[in-house]
Amino acid sequence: MLSPAGFRALHRPGEPLLLPNAWDLASARWLVEQGAEVVGTTSLGVAVAAGEEDGTGAALTPTIELARRLTSAGIAVTVDLESGFTEEPAAVAELAAELAALGVVGVNLEDSTADGRLVAPAAFAEKLAAVAAAAPRLYLNARTDAFWVDAFPPDSRAVAARTSETLERARRYHDAGASGVFVPGELDDRTIAALVDGIAAPLNVLAQPGRGIRELGRLGVARVSTGSLLFRAALAAVGTVLGEVRDGAVPGTTALPIPDYATAAALGRDIASPSPR
Amino acid sequence: MLSPAGFRALHRPGEPLLLPNAWDLASARWLVEQGAEVVGTTSLGVAVAAGEEDGTGAALTPTIELARRLTSAGIAVTVDLESGFTEEPAAVAELAAELAALGVVGVNLEDSTADGRLVAPAAFAEKLAAVAAAAPRLYLNARTDAFWVDAFPPDSRAVAARTSETLERARRYHDAGASGVFVPGELDDRTIAALVDGIAAPLNVLAQPGRGIRELGRLGVARVSTGSLLFRAALAAVGTVLGEVRDGAVPGTTALPIPDYATAAALGRDIASPSPR
Repeated sequence: MLSPAGFRALHRPGEPLLLPNAWDLASARWLVEQGAEVVGTTSLGVAVAAGEEDGTGAALTPTIELARRLTSAGIAVTVDLESGFTEEPAAVAELAAELAALGVVGVNLEDSTADGRLVAPAAFAEKLAAVAAAAPRLYLNARTDAFWVDAFPPDSRAVAARTSETLERARRYHDAGASGVFVPGELDDRTIAALVDGIAAPLNVLAQPGRGIRELGRLGVARVSTGSLLFRAALAAVGTVLGEVRDGAVPGTTALPIPDYATAAALGRDIASPSPR
Repeated sequence: MLSPAGFRALHRPGEPLLLPNAWDLASARWLVEQGAEVVGTTSLGVAVAAGEEDGTGAALTPTIELARRLTSAGIAVTVDLESGFTEEPAAVAELAAELAALGVVGVNLEDSTADGRLVAPAAFAEKLAAVAAAAPRLYLNARTDAFWVDAFPPDSRAVAARTSETLERARRYHDAGASGVFVPGELDDRTIAALVDGIAAPLNVLAQPGRGIRELGRLGVARVSTGSLLFRAALAAVGTVLGEVRDGAVPGTTALPIPDYATAAALGRDIASPSPR
Protein backbone atom coordinates (compact mmCIF):
# COMPACT_ATOMS: atom_id res chain seq x y z
CA MET A 1 0.00 0.00 0.00
CA LEU A 2 1.11 3.54 -0.80
CA SER A 3 2.86 5.33 2.11
CA PRO A 4 2.27 8.98 3.04
CA ALA A 5 5.69 9.74 1.52
CA GLY A 6 4.74 7.93 -1.67
CA PHE A 7 1.48 9.87 -1.78
CA ARG A 8 3.37 13.13 -1.29
CA ALA A 9 5.63 12.23 -4.23
CA LEU A 10 2.58 11.86 -6.50
CA HIS A 11 1.94 15.63 -6.22
CA ARG A 12 3.93 16.77 -9.23
CA PRO A 13 3.10 20.25 -10.51
CA GLY A 14 2.56 19.89 -14.24
CA GLU A 15 1.76 16.19 -14.06
CA PRO A 16 -1.23 16.11 -11.72
CA LEU A 17 -2.45 13.20 -9.67
CA LEU A 18 -6.08 12.39 -10.56
CA LEU A 19 -7.61 11.67 -7.17
CA PRO A 20 -11.11 10.15 -7.36
CA ASN A 21 -13.28 10.38 -4.26
CA ALA A 22 -15.12 7.40 -2.77
CA TRP A 23 -17.90 7.27 -0.18
CA ASP A 24 -17.96 3.61 0.83
CA LEU A 25 -15.90 0.46 0.47
CA ALA A 26 -17.62 -0.60 -2.76
CA SER A 27 -17.00 2.70 -4.53
CA ALA A 28 -13.39 2.72 -3.32
CA ARG A 29 -12.73 -0.81 -4.54
CA TRP A 30 -14.38 0.06 -7.83
CA LEU A 31 -12.10 3.10 -8.23
CA VAL A 32 -9.08 0.89 -7.56
CA GLU A 33 -10.40 -1.42 -10.31
CA GLN A 34 -10.55 1.64 -12.58
CA GLY A 35 -6.84 2.18 -11.97
CA ALA A 36 -6.70 4.48 -8.92
CA GLU A 37 -3.58 3.96 -6.81
CA VAL A 38 -5.05 6.11 -4.05
CA VAL A 39 -8.53 7.49 -3.36
CA GLY A 40 -9.90 10.44 -1.45
CA THR A 41 -13.16 10.41 0.44
CA THR A 42 -15.99 12.81 -0.34
CA SER A 43 -17.50 14.26 2.81
CA LEU A 44 -20.79 14.80 0.95
CA GLY A 45 -21.08 11.14 0.00
CA VAL A 46 -19.93 9.85 3.38
CA ALA A 47 -22.32 12.11 5.29
CA VAL A 48 -25.35 11.55 3.10
CA ALA A 49 -24.83 7.78 2.91
CA ALA A 50 -24.90 7.83 6.72
CA GLY A 51 -27.97 10.06 6.86
CA GLU A 52 -26.06 13.13 8.01
CA GLU A 53 -25.62 16.61 6.60
CA ASP A 54 -22.34 17.46 4.91
CA GLY A 55 -20.05 20.10 6.38
CA THR A 56 -21.82 20.18 9.73
CA GLY A 57 -19.42 17.94 11.63
CA ALA A 58 -22.10 15.29 12.11
CA ALA A 59 -20.28 12.60 10.13
CA LEU A 60 -17.26 12.07 12.36
CA THR A 61 -18.04 8.44 13.20
CA PRO A 62 -18.76 7.25 9.63
CA THR A 63 -15.66 9.15 8.46
CA ILE A 64 -13.38 7.26 10.86
CA GLU A 65 -15.19 3.99 10.18
CA LEU A 66 -14.68 4.36 6.43
CA ALA A 67 -10.99 5.18 6.90
CA ARG A 68 -10.65 2.01 8.98
CA ARG A 69 -12.43 -0.09 6.33
CA LEU A 70 -10.40 1.23 3.43
CA THR A 71 -7.03 0.89 5.12
CA SER A 72 -7.99 -2.61 6.34
CA ALA A 73 -8.81 -3.49 2.74
CA GLY A 74 -5.35 -2.31 1.66
CA ILE A 75 -6.61 0.82 -0.09
CA ALA A 76 -4.52 3.98 0.20
CA VAL A 77 -6.81 6.84 1.21
CA THR A 78 -6.70 10.51 2.05
CA VAL A 79 -9.61 11.52 4.25
CA ASP A 80 -11.86 14.56 3.88
CA LEU A 81 -12.31 15.91 7.43
CA GLU A 82 -14.62 18.83 6.54
CA SER A 83 -13.46 21.55 8.95
CA GLY A 84 -12.15 18.99 11.42
CA PHE A 85 -15.46 18.10 13.16
CA THR A 86 -14.58 20.51 15.98
CA GLU A 87 -13.20 24.00 16.48
CA GLU A 88 -10.61 22.73 18.96
CA PRO A 89 -7.16 22.41 17.29
CA ALA A 90 -6.02 19.79 19.82
CA ALA A 91 -9.05 17.61 19.06
CA VAL A 92 -8.49 17.83 15.29
CA ALA A 93 -4.84 16.94 15.86
CA GLU A 94 -5.85 13.91 17.90
CA LEU A 95 -8.20 12.79 15.12
CA ALA A 96 -5.44 13.18 12.52
CA ALA A 97 -3.06 11.13 14.66
CA GLU A 98 -5.72 8.42 15.01
CA LEU A 99 -6.14 8.33 11.24
CA ALA A 100 -2.38 8.27 10.68
CA ALA A 101 -2.20 5.26 13.00
CA LEU A 102 -4.80 3.52 10.80
CA GLY A 103 -2.52 4.04 7.82
CA VAL A 104 -4.25 6.83 5.91
CA VAL A 105 -1.88 8.83 3.71
CA GLY A 106 -3.42 12.28 4.04
CA VAL A 107 -6.25 14.47 5.25
CA ASN A 108 -8.18 17.49 3.96
CA LEU A 109 -9.31 20.35 6.15
CA GLU A 110 -11.48 23.24 4.90
CA ASP A 111 -11.71 26.84 6.05
CA SER A 112 -15.42 27.46 5.57
CA THR A 113 -18.56 26.49 7.44
CA ALA A 114 -21.66 24.65 6.21
CA ASP A 115 -23.53 27.96 6.03
CA GLY A 116 -20.94 29.41 3.65
CA ARG A 117 -18.77 31.58 5.90
CA LEU A 118 -15.00 31.71 5.64
CA VAL A 119 -13.50 31.26 9.10
CA ALA A 120 -10.74 33.54 10.42
CA PRO A 121 -7.47 32.50 8.76
CA ALA A 122 -5.52 32.63 12.03
CA ALA A 123 -7.89 30.18 13.72
CA PHE A 124 -7.71 27.82 10.76
CA ALA A 125 -3.91 28.08 10.61
CA GLU A 126 -3.84 27.04 14.26
CA LYS A 127 -5.75 23.84 13.40
CA LEU A 128 -3.33 23.09 10.59
CA ALA A 129 -0.31 23.67 12.83
CA ALA A 130 -1.74 21.32 15.47
CA VAL A 131 -2.36 18.60 12.87
CA ALA A 132 1.07 19.04 11.26
CA ALA A 133 2.69 18.66 14.69
CA ALA A 134 0.62 15.63 15.72
CA ALA A 135 0.78 13.76 12.41
CA PRO A 136 3.82 15.07 10.55
CA ARG A 137 3.93 12.26 7.96
CA LEU A 138 0.36 12.83 6.72
CA TYR A 139 -0.13 14.86 3.55
CA LEU A 140 -2.06 17.80 4.96
CA ASN A 141 -4.18 19.39 2.25
CA ALA A 142 -5.52 22.81 3.26
CA ARG A 143 -8.73 23.62 1.41
CA THR A 144 -9.41 27.32 1.15
CA ASP A 145 -12.87 28.31 0.01
CA ALA A 146 -12.89 31.87 -1.32
CA PHE A 147 -13.97 30.46 -4.71
CA TRP A 148 -16.47 28.10 -3.09
CA VAL A 149 -18.52 30.29 -0.76
CA ASP A 150 -20.91 33.03 -1.90
CA ALA A 151 -19.36 35.74 0.27
CA PHE A 152 -17.97 37.74 -2.65
CA PRO A 153 -19.79 40.12 -5.01
CA PRO A 154 -20.93 38.29 -8.15
CA ASP A 155 -19.17 40.52 -10.64
CA SER A 156 -15.84 40.78 -12.40
CA ARG A 157 -14.10 42.23 -9.34
CA ALA A 158 -15.00 39.06 -7.48
CA VAL A 159 -12.38 36.95 -9.24
CA ALA A 160 -9.64 39.38 -8.22
CA ALA A 161 -10.93 39.56 -4.65
CA ARG A 162 -11.24 35.80 -4.37
CA THR A 163 -7.79 35.27 -5.87
CA SER A 164 -6.21 37.73 -3.49
CA GLU A 165 -7.98 36.20 -0.47
CA THR A 166 -6.92 32.72 -1.61
CA LEU A 167 -3.27 33.68 -2.07
CA GLU A 168 -3.11 35.31 1.34
CA ARG A 169 -4.72 32.33 3.05
CA ALA A 170 -2.58 29.83 1.13
CA ARG A 171 0.57 31.57 2.33
CA ARG A 172 -0.56 31.44 5.96
CA TYR A 173 -1.67 27.84 5.71
CA HIS A 174 1.55 26.71 4.07
CA ASP A 175 3.53 28.53 6.75
CA ALA A 176 1.44 26.73 9.37
CA GLY A 177 2.46 23.35 7.97
CA ALA A 178 0.05 22.50 5.14
CA SER A 179 1.58 20.16 2.57
CA GLY A 180 -0.66 21.37 -0.23
CA VAL A 181 -3.46 23.82 -0.97
CA PHE A 182 -6.85 22.88 -2.42
CA VAL A 183 -8.95 25.57 -4.10
CA PRO A 184 -12.38 24.14 -4.97
CA GLY A 185 -14.71 25.88 -7.39
CA GLU A 186 -14.88 26.50 -11.11
CA LEU A 187 -11.71 28.35 -12.08
CA ASP A 188 -10.68 29.86 -15.40
CA ASP A 189 -7.22 29.17 -16.80
CA ARG A 190 -5.84 32.59 -15.88
CA THR A 191 -6.91 32.16 -12.26
CA ILE A 192 -5.40 28.68 -12.05
CA ALA A 193 -2.12 30.01 -13.45
CA ALA A 194 -2.16 32.89 -10.95
CA LEU A 195 -2.75 30.47 -8.07
CA VAL A 196 0.07 28.18 -9.22
CA ASP A 197 2.36 31.21 -9.46
CA GLY A 198 1.42 32.64 -6.08
CA ILE A 199 1.26 29.49 -3.94
CA ALA A 200 4.46 27.77 -2.84
CA ALA A 201 2.71 24.45 -2.12
CA PRO A 202 1.31 21.98 -4.69
CA LEU A 203 -2.07 23.20 -6.00
CA ASN A 204 -5.12 20.94 -5.96
CA VAL A 205 -8.22 21.88 -7.96
CA LEU A 206 -11.50 20.17 -8.74
CA ALA A 207 -12.14 18.60 -12.13
CA GLN A 208 -12.91 21.50 -14.48
CA PRO A 209 -15.46 21.37 -17.30
CA GLY A 210 -13.82 20.99 -20.69
CA ARG A 211 -10.27 20.62 -19.41
CA GLY A 212 -8.72 17.23 -18.73
CA ILE A 213 -5.81 16.24 -16.54
CA ARG A 214 -3.29 17.13 -19.24
CA GLU A 215 -4.65 20.67 -19.74
CA LEU A 216 -4.73 21.31 -15.99
CA GLY A 217 -1.20 19.94 -15.78
CA ARG A 218 -0.03 22.46 -18.36
CA LEU A 219 -1.25 25.19 -16.02
CA GLY A 220 0.92 23.77 -13.23
CA VAL A 221 -1.71 21.94 -11.19
CA ALA A 222 -0.40 19.09 -9.01
CA ARG A 223 -3.63 17.30 -8.08
CA VAL A 224 -7.14 17.09 -9.51
CA SER A 225 -9.94 15.85 -7.24
CA THR A 226 -13.42 14.78 -8.23
CA GLY A 227 -14.97 15.97 -4.96
CA SER A 228 -18.61 14.90 -4.81
CA LEU A 229 -18.91 14.52 -8.61
CA LEU A 230 -18.68 10.72 -8.80
CA PHE A 231 -21.17 10.31 -5.95
CA ARG A 232 -23.58 12.62 -7.74
CA ALA A 233 -22.96 10.79 -11.03
CA ALA A 234 -23.92 7.55 -9.26
CA LEU A 235 -27.21 9.14 -8.19
CA ALA A 236 -27.76 10.34 -11.75
CA ALA A 237 -27.30 6.84 -13.11
CA VAL A 238 -29.76 5.44 -10.58
CA GLY A 239 -32.44 7.88 -11.72
CA THR A 240 -31.66 7.43 -15.41
CA VAL A 241 -31.65 3.64 -15.39
CA LEU A 242 -34.77 3.51 -13.21
CA GLY A 243 -36.49 5.58 -15.91
CA GLU A 244 -35.22 3.17 -18.57
CA VAL A 245 -36.63 0.23 -16.63
CA ARG A 246 -39.97 1.97 -16.29
CA ASP A 247 -40.12 2.72 -19.99
CA GLY A 248 -38.76 -0.59 -21.20
CA ALA A 249 -35.54 0.58 -22.79
CA VAL A 250 -32.66 -1.84 -22.59
CA PRO A 251 -30.91 -0.55 -19.46
CA GLY A 252 -27.49 0.81 -20.20
CA THR A 253 -28.17 1.86 -23.75
CA THR A 254 -27.55 5.47 -22.79
CA ALA A 255 -23.79 5.01 -22.95
CA LEU A 256 -23.47 3.48 -19.47
CA PRO A 257 -21.35 0.33 -19.56
CA ILE A 258 -23.08 -1.40 -16.65
CA PRO A 259 -20.92 -4.12 -15.08
CA ASP A 260 -22.49 -7.55 -14.80
CA TYR A 261 -23.43 -9.19 -11.52
CA ALA A 262 -20.19 -11.18 -11.21
CA THR A 263 -18.03 -8.10 -11.71
CA ALA A 264 -19.93 -6.13 -9.08
CA ALA A 265 -20.01 -9.09 -6.71
CA ALA A 266 -16.22 -9.40 -6.92
CA LEU A 267 -16.02 -6.06 -5.08
CA GLY A 268 -17.17 -7.92 -1.96
CA ARG A 269 -14.04 -10.06 -1.93
CA ASP A 270 -10.85 -9.22 -0.14
CA ILE A 271 -8.28 -7.78 -2.44
CA ALA A 272 -4.93 -8.52 -0.83
CA SER A 273 -3.11 -5.93 -2.87
CA PRO A 274 -4.97 -3.48 -5.09
CA SER A 275 -4.00 -3.62 -8.73
CA PRO A 276 -1.25 -1.06 -9.48
CA ARG A 277 -2.11 1.85 -11.75
CA MET B 1 -45.34 5.44 5.95
CA LEU B 2 -46.75 2.54 3.99
CA SER B 3 -47.97 -0.38 6.11
CA PRO B 4 -47.37 -4.06 5.28
CA ALA B 5 -51.04 -4.25 4.27
CA GLY B 6 -50.67 -1.21 2.04
CA PHE B 7 -47.60 -2.78 0.49
CA ARG B 8 -49.49 -6.01 -0.12
CA ALA B 9 -52.23 -4.06 -1.88
CA LEU B 10 -49.68 -2.61 -4.32
CA HIS B 11 -49.17 -6.09 -5.81
CA ARG B 12 -51.75 -5.93 -8.58
CA PRO B 13 -51.36 -8.50 -11.35
CA GLY B 14 -51.52 -6.56 -14.61
CA GLU B 15 -50.54 -3.26 -13.02
CA PRO B 16 -47.16 -4.04 -11.49
CA LEU B 17 -45.42 -2.23 -8.70
CA LEU B 18 -42.03 -0.97 -9.84
CA LEU B 19 -39.82 -1.69 -6.85
CA PRO B 20 -36.36 -0.09 -7.05
CA ASN B 21 -33.63 -1.52 -4.84
CA ALA B 22 -31.41 0.62 -2.61
CA TRP B 23 -28.17 -0.27 -0.81
CA ASP B 24 -27.76 2.61 1.63
CA LEU B 25 -29.70 5.52 3.06
CA ALA B 26 -28.60 7.94 0.33
CA SER B 27 -29.71 5.69 -2.53
CA ALA B 28 -33.01 5.00 -0.74
CA ARG B 29 -33.73 8.68 -0.20
CA TRP B 30 -32.81 9.37 -3.80
CA LEU B 31 -35.25 6.70 -4.99
CA VAL B 32 -37.97 8.28 -2.85
CA GLU B 33 -37.11 11.59 -4.56
CA GLN B 34 -37.55 9.80 -7.89
CA GLY B 35 -41.09 8.88 -6.87
CA ALA B 36 -40.74 5.51 -5.14
CA GLU B 37 -43.34 4.93 -2.43
CA VAL B 38 -41.46 1.88 -1.21
CA VAL B 39 -37.99 0.49 -1.88
CA GLY B 40 -36.40 -2.93 -1.72
CA THR B 41 -32.83 -3.56 -0.68
CA THR B 42 -30.32 -5.28 -2.96
CA SER B 43 -28.29 -7.86 -1.08
CA LEU B 44 -25.48 -7.41 -3.61
CA GLY B 45 -25.20 -3.68 -2.93
CA VAL B 46 -25.61 -4.00 0.82
CA ALA B 47 -23.00 -6.76 1.07
CA VAL B 48 -20.43 -5.18 -1.22
CA ALA B 49 -20.79 -1.72 0.32
CA ALA B 50 -19.99 -3.39 3.65
CA GLY B 51 -17.05 -5.32 2.21
CA GLU B 52 -18.83 -8.66 2.31
CA GLU B 53 -19.69 -11.22 -0.35
CA ASP B 54 -23.27 -11.43 -1.55
CA GLY B 55 -25.33 -14.52 -0.94
CA THR B 56 -22.96 -15.96 1.63
CA GLY B 57 -24.83 -14.88 4.75
CA ALA B 58 -21.99 -12.56 5.77
CA ALA B 59 -24.04 -9.36 5.53
CA LEU B 60 -26.55 -9.95 8.33
CA THR B 61 -25.45 -6.99 10.47
CA PRO B 62 -25.39 -4.38 7.67
CA THR B 63 -28.75 -5.72 6.44
CA ILE B 64 -30.43 -5.15 9.81
CA GLU B 65 -28.64 -1.83 10.26
CA LEU B 66 -29.90 -0.58 6.88
CA ALA B 67 -33.46 -1.68 7.69
CA ARG B 68 -33.23 0.29 10.93
CA ARG B 69 -31.92 3.38 9.16
CA LEU B 70 -34.54 3.33 6.42
CA THR B 71 -37.48 2.77 8.72
CA SER B 72 -36.16 5.45 11.11
CA ALA B 73 -36.03 7.81 8.14
CA GLY B 74 -39.67 7.06 7.37
CA ILE B 75 -38.93 5.03 4.24
CA ALA B 76 -41.06 1.97 3.56
CA VAL B 77 -38.75 -0.94 2.79
CA THR B 78 -38.84 -4.63 1.97
CA VAL B 79 -35.61 -6.35 2.90
CA ASP B 80 -33.62 -8.83 0.84
CA LEU B 81 -32.53 -11.54 3.30
CA GLU B 82 -30.59 -13.70 0.81
CA SER B 83 -31.36 -17.24 2.01
CA GLY B 84 -32.03 -16.04 5.55
CA PHE B 85 -28.42 -15.84 6.81
CA THR B 86 -28.83 -19.24 8.44
CA GLU B 87 -30.24 -22.69 7.67
CA GLU B 88 -32.23 -22.70 10.92
CA PRO B 89 -35.92 -21.85 10.26
CA ALA B 90 -36.43 -20.60 13.84
CA ALA B 91 -33.51 -18.17 13.49
CA VAL B 92 -34.82 -16.80 10.19
CA ALA B 93 -38.24 -16.39 11.78
CA GLU B 94 -36.71 -14.49 14.68
CA LEU B 95 -34.91 -12.19 12.24
CA ALA B 96 -38.14 -11.56 10.32
CA ALA B 97 -39.96 -10.73 13.56
CA GLU B 98 -37.17 -8.30 14.50
CA LEU B 99 -37.49 -6.60 11.13
CA ALA B 100 -41.27 -6.47 11.41
CA ALA B 101 -40.86 -4.74 14.76
CA LEU B 102 -38.67 -2.12 13.06
CA GLY B 103 -41.52 -1.43 10.65
CA VAL B 104 -40.33 -3.07 7.44
CA VAL B 105 -43.17 -4.04 5.10
CA GLY B 106 -41.75 -7.22 3.61
CA VAL B 107 -38.84 -9.59 3.19
CA ASN B 108 -37.33 -11.68 0.38
CA LEU B 109 -35.93 -15.14 0.87
CA GLU B 110 -34.17 -17.12 -1.88
CA ASP B 111 -33.88 -20.86 -2.46
CA SER B 112 -30.36 -21.04 -3.87
CA THR B 113 -26.87 -20.82 -2.43
CA ALA B 114 -24.01 -18.49 -3.33
CA ASP B 115 -22.35 -21.32 -5.27
CA GLY B 116 -25.42 -21.75 -7.48
CA ARG B 117 -27.20 -24.76 -5.99
CA LEU B 118 -30.95 -24.91 -5.53
CA VAL B 119 -31.72 -26.06 -1.99
CA ALA B 120 -34.25 -28.79 -1.27
CA PRO B 121 -37.75 -27.31 -1.65
CA ALA B 122 -39.01 -28.90 1.56
CA ALA B 123 -36.24 -27.30 3.64
CA PHE B 124 -36.91 -23.93 2.08
CA ALA B 125 -40.67 -24.26 2.57
CA GLU B 126 -39.97 -24.89 6.26
CA LYS B 127 -38.14 -21.55 6.49
CA LEU B 128 -41.03 -19.78 4.79
CA ALA B 129 -43.57 -21.37 7.12
CA ALA B 130 -41.55 -20.33 10.16
CA VAL B 131 -41.33 -16.73 8.92
CA ALA B 132 -45.03 -16.60 7.99
CA ALA B 133 -45.93 -17.79 11.49
CA ALA B 134 -43.56 -15.40 13.29
CA ALA B 135 -44.28 -12.30 11.21
CA PRO B 136 -47.68 -12.84 9.59
CA ARG B 137 -48.15 -9.20 8.54
CA LEU B 138 -44.94 -9.02 6.49
CA TYR B 139 -45.19 -9.49 2.73
CA LEU B 140 -43.15 -12.66 2.33
CA ASN B 141 -41.67 -12.84 -1.15
CA ALA B 142 -40.31 -16.29 -1.99
CA ARG B 143 -37.57 -16.10 -4.59
CA THR B 144 -37.11 -19.29 -6.54
CA ASP B 145 -33.99 -19.55 -8.63
CA ALA B 146 -34.38 -22.19 -11.34
CA PHE B 147 -33.94 -19.43 -13.96
CA TRP B 148 -31.06 -17.88 -11.99
CA VAL B 149 -28.68 -20.75 -11.27
CA ASP B 150 -26.70 -22.63 -13.90
CA ALA B 151 -27.90 -26.07 -12.84
CA PHE B 152 -29.93 -26.70 -15.99
CA PRO B 153 -28.70 -27.75 -19.44
CA PRO B 154 -28.11 -24.71 -21.64
CA ASP B 155 -30.43 -25.76 -24.46
CA SER B 156 -34.04 -25.40 -25.49
CA ARG B 157 -35.22 -28.09 -23.04
CA ALA B 158 -33.83 -25.95 -20.24
CA VAL B 159 -36.66 -23.43 -20.39
CA ALA B 160 -39.25 -26.17 -20.01
CA ALA B 161 -37.29 -27.82 -17.18
CA ARG B 162 -36.78 -24.53 -15.39
CA THR B 163 -40.42 -23.55 -15.81
CA SER B 164 -41.60 -26.87 -14.44
CA GLU B 165 -39.21 -26.69 -11.47
CA THR B 166 -40.33 -23.12 -10.78
CA LEU B 167 -44.03 -23.96 -10.89
CA GLU B 168 -43.59 -26.90 -8.55
CA ARG B 169 -41.55 -24.85 -6.08
CA ALA B 170 -43.92 -21.87 -6.29
CA ARG B 171 -46.85 -24.11 -5.36
CA ARG B 172 -45.01 -25.48 -2.32
CA TYR B 173 -43.82 -22.06 -1.21
CA HIS B 174 -47.24 -20.49 -1.55
CA ASP B 175 -48.74 -23.36 0.42
CA ALA B 176 -46.08 -22.75 3.10
CA GLY B 177 -47.22 -19.16 3.51
CA ALA B 178 -45.39 -17.08 0.90
CA SER B 179 -47.28 -13.93 -0.07
CA GLY B 180 -45.69 -13.74 -3.50
CA VAL B 181 -43.19 -15.50 -5.75
CA PHE B 182 -40.12 -13.88 -7.29
CA VAL B 183 -38.52 -15.50 -10.33
CA PRO B 184 -35.27 -13.69 -11.16
CA GLY B 185 -33.54 -14.11 -14.49
CA GLU B 186 -34.11 -13.09 -18.08
CA LEU B 187 -37.50 -14.48 -19.09
CA ASP B 188 -39.22 -14.49 -22.47
CA ASP B 189 -42.85 -13.42 -22.74
CA ARG B 190 -44.18 -16.97 -23.11
CA THR B 191 -42.40 -18.06 -19.94
CA ILE B 192 -43.69 -15.08 -17.98
CA ALA B 193 -47.23 -15.82 -19.14
CA ALA B 194 -46.82 -19.49 -18.16
CA LEU B 195 -45.57 -18.51 -14.71
CA VAL B 196 -48.45 -16.08 -14.20
CA ASP B 197 -50.89 -18.82 -15.25
CA GLY B 198 -49.35 -21.49 -13.06
CA ILE B 199 -48.66 -19.56 -9.86
CA ALA B 200 -51.50 -18.63 -7.53
CA ALA B 201 -49.50 -15.85 -5.81
CA PRO B 202 -48.53 -12.47 -7.31
CA LEU B 203 -45.53 -12.85 -9.64
CA ASN B 204 -42.43 -10.69 -9.24
CA VAL B 205 -39.84 -10.55 -12.02
CA LEU B 206 -36.69 -8.53 -12.62
CA ALA B 207 -36.66 -5.64 -15.06
CA GLN B 208 -36.50 -7.22 -18.52
CA PRO B 209 -34.55 -5.78 -21.46
CA GLY B 210 -36.80 -4.09 -23.97
CA ARG B 211 -40.02 -4.43 -22.00
CA GLY B 212 -41.23 -1.74 -19.64
CA ILE B 213 -43.62 -1.91 -16.72
CA ARG B 214 -46.64 -1.67 -18.98
CA GLU B 215 -45.56 -4.60 -21.20
CA LEU B 216 -44.79 -6.77 -18.17
CA GLY B 217 -48.14 -5.77 -16.73
CA ARG B 218 -49.90 -7.02 -19.85
CA LEU B 219 -48.38 -10.43 -19.18
CA GLY B 220 -49.89 -10.43 -15.68
CA VAL B 221 -46.83 -9.52 -13.61
CA ALA B 222 -47.57 -7.92 -10.21
CA ARG B 223 -44.14 -6.56 -9.27
CA VAL B 224 -40.98 -5.61 -11.13
CA SER B 225 -37.73 -5.34 -9.16
CA THR B 226 -34.48 -3.79 -10.25
CA GLY B 227 -32.37 -6.18 -8.17
CA SER B 228 -28.74 -5.12 -8.31
CA LEU B 229 -29.17 -3.16 -11.55
CA LEU B 230 -29.26 0.34 -10.05
CA PHE B 231 -26.25 -0.37 -7.85
CA ARG B 232 -24.34 -1.59 -10.89
CA ALA B 233 -25.52 1.43 -12.89
CA ALA B 234 -24.08 3.64 -10.13
CA LEU B 235 -20.72 1.90 -10.51
CA ALA B 236 -20.93 2.35 -14.28
CA ALA B 237 -21.50 6.09 -13.89
CA VAL B 238 -18.52 6.38 -11.56
CA GLY B 239 -16.24 4.78 -14.13
CA THR B 240 -17.71 6.72 -17.03
CA VAL B 241 -17.54 10.14 -15.38
CA LEU B 242 -14.05 9.46 -14.03
CA GLY B 243 -12.98 8.83 -17.62
CA GLU B 244 -14.65 12.07 -18.68
CA VAL B 245 -12.74 13.97 -15.99
CA ARG B 246 -9.48 12.39 -17.09
CA ASP B 247 -10.11 13.30 -20.73
CA GLY B 248 -11.50 16.75 -20.11
CA ALA B 249 -15.02 16.23 -21.37
CA VAL B 250 -17.70 18.20 -19.58
CA PRO B 251 -18.84 15.63 -17.03
CA GLY B 252 -22.38 14.52 -17.62
CA THR B 253 -22.48 15.12 -21.32
CA THR B 254 -23.04 11.42 -21.87
CA ALA B 255 -26.74 11.77 -21.09
CA LEU B 256 -26.34 11.66 -17.31
CA PRO B 257 -28.30 14.44 -15.62
CA ILE B 258 -25.94 14.82 -12.65
CA PRO B 259 -27.63 16.53 -9.68
CA ASP B 260 -25.89 19.59 -8.28
CA TYR B 261 -24.25 19.70 -4.87
CA ALA B 262 -27.27 21.21 -3.11
CA THR B 263 -29.63 18.55 -4.45
CA ALA B 264 -27.34 15.74 -3.34
CA ALA B 265 -26.66 17.40 0.01
CA ALA B 266 -30.40 17.61 0.70
CA LEU B 267 -30.39 13.80 0.94
CA GLY B 268 -28.56 14.19 4.25
CA ARG B 269 -31.51 15.98 5.81
CA ASP B 270 -34.34 14.31 7.64
CA ILE B 271 -37.40 13.86 5.52
CA ALA B 272 -40.31 13.67 7.90
CA SER B 273 -42.63 12.12 5.35
CA PRO B 274 -41.37 10.96 1.98
CA SER B 275 -43.01 12.61 -0.97
CA PRO B 276 -45.96 10.54 -2.20
CA ARG B 277 -45.70 8.97 -5.60
